[in-house]
Amino acid sequence: MNTRTDYKKTGLNTIYGNRGMGLETEINETNQYYLIHDIAVIHKKPTHVTIKKVDYHSRVDAIIKEAYFKTPSTTDYNGVYKGKYIDFEAKETKQKTTFPLSNIHKHQIEHLKKIVNHGGIGFIIVRFTSLNQTYFLSAVDLFAFIDSNKRKSIPITYFEEKGYLIKDKYQPRVDYLAIIDKILEGEVNEKSN
Amino acid sequence: MNTRTDYKKTGLNTIYGNRGMGLETEINETNQYYLIHDIAVIHKKPTHVTIKKVDYHSRVDAIIKEAYFKTPSTTDYNGVYKGKYIDFEAKETKQKTTFPLSNIHKHQIEHLKKIVNHGGIGFIIVRFTSLNQTYFLSAVDLFAFIDSNKRKSIPITYFEEKGYLIKDKYQPRVDYLAIIDKILEGEVNEKSN
Repeated sequence: MNTRTDYKKTGLNTIYGNRGMGLETEINETNQYYLIHDIAVIHKKPTHVTIKKVDYHSRVDAIIKEAYFKTPSTTDYNGVYKGKYIDFEAKETKQKTTFPLSNIHKHQIEHLKKIVNHGGIGFIIVRFTSLNQTYFLSAVDLFAFIDSNKRKSIPITYFEEKGYLIKDKYQPRVDYLAIIDKILEGEVNEKSN
Repeated sequence: MNTRTDYKKTGLNTIYGNRGMGLETEINETNQYYLIHDIAVIHKKPTHVTIKKVDYHSRVDAIIKEAYFKTPSTTDYNGVYKGKYIDFEAKETKQKTTFPLSNIHKHQIEHLKKIVNHGGIGFIIVRFTSLNQTYFLSAVDLFAFIDSNKRKSIPITYFEEKGYLIKDKYQPRVDYLAIIDKILEGEVNEKSN
């Protein structure tokens, strides 16, 4: 049995969620940028854990001595932008030509379906680390792929065709709200036609 | 040092958040009701913890051996209802005539301010356990009280005047969306005048 005391450095998330710290850190920084600049309020949810045993002297210095990771039943990120409910999951893959759907839990996809049904904006952000390309794919296009394919991975061409490339920027790092602006503008245009 | 193995039963949350398990459990059941009946998608966020040490054999059987409770920087509950972003905090008090503001962290109030500024629906649910009365108070009315008072607790008369009593029901237990419906109807009426 290994004992890892350097939890943060070793990035256990990579082991569990198949999610590199690179993209996650950059999205956290992006959300921080949005928050500070009063653009949006979007947070990463805390890691889902089941707490079993707690030692404590007082209210302040409690130590959790036994806990377990839980499979998340929702996506990792949600919040509000221009009054709209925002909900998404972010994943990295080392693959160069496809994104394996096994990266996203079934109940996370179910969750995104409910979000869209209730008028929220749902999407995934996928980074192909080998290519250094990061895509925004709306949940609706994700469902469309799943419903019309038996493939267990989404080819990168689908991201190129249906998704949006998120350009690398200095600040904010992963400016996904710029994509949502485009989509919302499209909505407005459609409605005004 | 006590070792509590019956974490769930002892309700450590009471110690930390000054929040009884009664209201929390009932709100979780209510959210489950909303989810199953396809009314809204609102979840409680996982407990905020900082993980320091993890023992693991494999991906599946990891045990968190050392972790600490963190002060939450956001509220506990958020989600989507009729396309609107919903965000709230729920608290119980044993007081009969006032609700001590110390129950809500300063950054939770700051968080609610940002939510409202970005067009979300923010509020608190407060239960006076001795009276068995549960109130809905909009974040706007919460800020109004804080800004115009130096008192460190909100008198129950303020909840009676500005808030909404949430009636006890069999299902859903704490039907706070019924209050939001009233508020949204009011909005529509105002707009149509």
